[in-house]
Amino acid sequence: MTRQEPADTPLGDDFHLYDTTLRDGAQREGITYSVADKLAVARLLDELGVGFIEGGWPGALPKDTEFFAKAAAGELQLKHAALVAFGSTRKANTTADQDKQVRALLDSQAPVITLVAKSDLRHIERALRVDVDEACEMVRDTVSFLVAEGRRVFVDLEHFFDGYEFSPETSYRVLDAAASGGADVMVLCDTNGGQLPLGLAETVRTIKDKTGFRLGIHCQDDTSCAVANSIAAVQAGATHVQCTANGYGERAGNADLFAVTGNLVAKLGMEVLPTGRAAELTRVSHALAEIANLAPDTHQAYVGSSAFAHKAGLHASAIKVDPLLYNHIDPASVGNDMRVLVTEMAGRASLELKGRELGVDLAGQPEALTRSVRKVKLLESEGWSFEAADASLELLLHREIGSDFLDEPPFVLESYRVVMDHRADGEVVSEATVRVHVGDQRVIATAEGTGPVHALDAALREALTPHLPWLDTVELADYKVRILPGHPGTDAVTRVLVETTDGHTEWTTVGVHGNIVEASWLALCDALVHKAATVRESLVTK
Amino acid sequence: MTRQEPADTPLGDDFHLYDTTLRDGAQREGITYSVADKLAVARLLDELGVGFIEGGWPGALPKDTEFFAKAAAGELQLKHAALVAFGSTRKANTTADQDKQVRALLDSQAPVITLVAKSDLRHIERALRVDVDEACEMVRDTVSFLVAEGRRVFVDLEHFFDGYEFSPETSYRVLDAAASGGADVMVLCDTNGGQLPLGLAETVRTIKDKTGFRLGIHCQDDTSCAVANSIAAVQAGATHVQCTANGYGERAGNADLFAVTGNLVAKLGMEVLPTGRAAELTRVSHALAEIANLAPDTHQAYVGSSAFAHKAGLHASAIKVDPLLYNHIDPASVGNDMRVLVTEMAGRASLELKGRELGVDLAGQPEALTRSVRKVKLLESEGWSFEAADASLELLLHREIGSDFLDEPPFVLESYRVVMDHRADGEVVSEATVRVHVGDQRVIATAEGTGPVHALDAALREALTPHLPWLDTVELADYKVRILPGHPGTDAVTRVLVETTDGHTEWTTVGVHGNIVEASWLALCDALVHKAATVRESLVTK
Repeated sequence: MTRQEPADTPLGDDFHLYDTTLRDGAQREGITYSVADKLAVARLLDELGVGFIEGGWPGALPKDTEFFAKAAAGELQLKHAALVAFGSTRKANTTADQDKQVRALLDSQAPVITLVAKSDLRHIERALRVDVDEACEMVRDTVSFLVAEGRRVFVDLEHFFDGYEFSPETSYRVLDAAASGGADVMVLCDTNGGQLPLGLAETVRTIKDKTGFRLGIHCQDDTSCAVANSIAAVQAGATHVQCTANGYGERAGNADLFAVTGNLVAKLGMEVLPTGRAAELTRVSHALAEIANLAPDTHQAYVGSSAFAHKAGLHASAIKVDPLLYNHIDPASVGNDMRVLVTEMAGRASLELKGRELGVDLAGQPEALTRSVRKVKLLESEGWSFEAADASLELLLHREIGSDFLDEPPFVLESYRVVMDHRADGEVVSEATVRVHVGDQRVIATAEGTGPVHALDAALREALTPHLPWLDTVELADYKVRILPGHPGTDAVTRVLVETTDGHTEWTTVGVHGNIVEASWLALCDALVHKAATVRESLVTK
Repeated sequence: MTRQEPADTPLGDDFHLYDTTLRDGAQREGITYSVADKLAVARLLDELGVGFIEGGWPGALPKDTEFFAKAAAGELQLKHAALVAFGSTRKANTTADQDKQVRALLDSQAPVITLVAKSDLRHIERALRVDVDEACEMVRDTVSFLVAEGRRVFVDLEHFFDGYEFSPETSYRVLDAAASGGADVMVLCDTNGGQLPLGLAETVRTIKDKTGFRLGIHCQDDTSCAVANSIAAVQAGATHVQCTANGYGERAGNADLFAVTGNLVAKLGMEVLPTGRAAELTRVSHALAEIANLAPDTHQAYVGSSAFAHKAGLHASAIKVDPLLYNHIDPASVGNDMRVLVTEMAGRASLELKGRELGVDLAGQPEALTRSVRKVKLLESEGWSFEAADASLELLLHREIGSDFLDEPPFVLESYRVVMDHRADGEVVSEATVRVHVGDQRVIATAEGTGPVHALDAALREALTPHLPWLDTVELADYKVRILPGHPGTDAVTRVLVETTDGHTEWTTVGVHGNIVEASWLALCDALVHKAATVRESLVTK
């Protein structure tokens, strides 16, 4: 059994930063994570240093079952977080050990299990259709069975606050059932999201005083108070807080992990992350938006690109003298920047730092650094984004410092043509022809594909594989398309992110163009140029 | 002098719902209101029934000066709200009656004036560069001058909470200066937005107890708590709350007028709007987003299109029986709707519910319902998703019940061809040719575009516009592409969502195919078929 507690956070097990992006966050309209996405999300959350990562509902959703199987097989090595499986208490009128869904939770091999339990009398009677005795027994029996099997168990008390208002007695009975079964944390859930902070804090304090149980909090954002409610609950005695990345979730969403963490660290002085990790909040937030294929919210607290942007006007000089008089925290503490001061110096510093991370030393080359900063700014104004495309940024920096391996590109494009026919018989076919130069040879190749980009990729492989033997091991691992906002209609700028793998490592490249096929082409080319460079050991893949 | 109090709200002057979209909201990156926009915003806010509308800073910004001149000339007839001009206290070492900026406030003829005053010792000393005596005199003198001229005066105490923590004595002195000058409301501003609700409520209560002054609250969203802080302040004794539409504002933004109002009305039972007007919240929110030229936030509390959207699945039957068990309020009370998202887990109950929402009655047609469920499940297994594509789902249901308007499609495709060239000179060009039948004519048209989909759309318009006059008003409002997970690499299934508008309503359609161009084509076709049906009044656009 793997770890059941957070590792390396100053607060240890005394406080739980608990993420449910992969389960409750996935309820957001429009989000569909693949198993590969889920693994990538879990790795990023672990890098940030959250204490618990809820991976999904094994047994209920095939993709979640597969995710836990891969994790158990060693594909997910968590350094900081404990992995959690979510599930329901057993069905009525059976026993936990005979309930298929409960069995699936054990089979997932997750060391920690969060069970959802109904605690609102109306839901018990109208949706569950059992009496309170049986509802409590379902909770107690399931918890104690899983605890006996060596699992750490948390219980999410669904609709807790509405239920407490309607029938406090029922709430206390379900709380007792969970605790007597051996649950570690009773998580009070504002499932319909209707709470406000002052009232919620009072309820949490009352429950804490009356029961002495370890309490958690789970808030939805239907009053636009999910973050505030989560913080108020912590101030009232909760020591476990459930969030989702960027507040993704059903309806108005959940409590945003980044704002909650920012507030806990910067406002309450609680060291809920491993030392130094708060500075990763902005980067991780944006990377998780990329994986969800959603544009980052530019006005998000703490991590939005506008969170510290000042239309300075009146106050420009005052801000320059004393920036902290105009910001509620130092933006760098959460990995963000104050935009009014994003001068070339600030841009230089971060690009130099990033270059060092990518193995490109710009410290001694001020002119190359200046050119790089200018180039990145220009490209970003055209819609490029290097946040999730390290390999493309690495190539850009090498181009600016004039690294000589770029003198020998693996191939040079002359031209390509893609033809796409929807025929009168209904068949849709795509065909691409590329004309490239490899070494001193000119090669022409044609291939078909399911779509224009696939056909183009196939034709390029057809042309290059005889000359570049390593190409056989290289394949596309992921392909994402984003139509950039501010350009409505199909006449828009398209950004393509391509993740490529050679079976050992992955690297991500980006292409931007008004034409999606050309944008894809640019990203594909960068991916191959990057690989060719690593083959010559000039670069290290990331 | 026009009205200085809100009209027609049950709470009258006892509570102030105060909007500063036109001044503080305009600080949001990317918002630029014309004078006509400002008048339109003010009219919408007045229709909603807010008590005060802050129109801008006359004398400081030419557009604001012009706005107030037009209002004074009778172009803005407010039924409910009092109009407010914003400005600063007089400069140091002069008198209010000789200060040009103060004179401009009088000249604006606004009946109510909100003055911003520094109340944080550090800002007084470092930014204003005067001592506390002079800072207080600047406030007192300016307020009393304007009051003597017949204006009602509110004072925004900038950086109040940070200043109170640093030097409470200074805060009290400035508060006293404002009150002794004759100000009606002392507005405590969390200018840097760093507060949390429990602490903020305690401060507001202390100030209220010590001074007895009428207090207001103005919150920024830097901790993601602006709405919660505003509500907590009201619960602690503030009777004046400053908001902006949709939370527009500098950095992370301001307290959102719609969430604050929703909470005051639905949670605290305060009648802050004229009777019945809460049902306008959703409409006004979306209209104000339009004027700001920003996409509405689909996940915004109370008013977002997803605010009451449920991925039904497991709970569909329970939701059908008792929707209020799954919503924190009745969505209709704020002019919103409950939406059931048709997802993989959807069954008969949720599809029937969804049909009713779309005006397709499946209750009496069990066989059509069975066919529809089977069709939706099949399509979803192939990567289709109707969550965000109501118009396509509506057409699907009409096809299954055999609605006869589908017998006359607006056009029938014979074939199309798209050619995309990346030429040897580096230029990238796209060209599309469509062959369609319109009525009994066969039409062939060719067009170029920035990309393959754009070219195809242009060619289709070229072919159809002479035959379908309504096509002129129809345009693409948004275009989204998603490469579906589980199909890595470019050989993937692509899902395209197209939002189309005719200037009055929007509708969204979906297309899925291995080929992105064909997927786009399918969504484009559904969009036109849907429009054609509404033109024949067979359907109502959503």
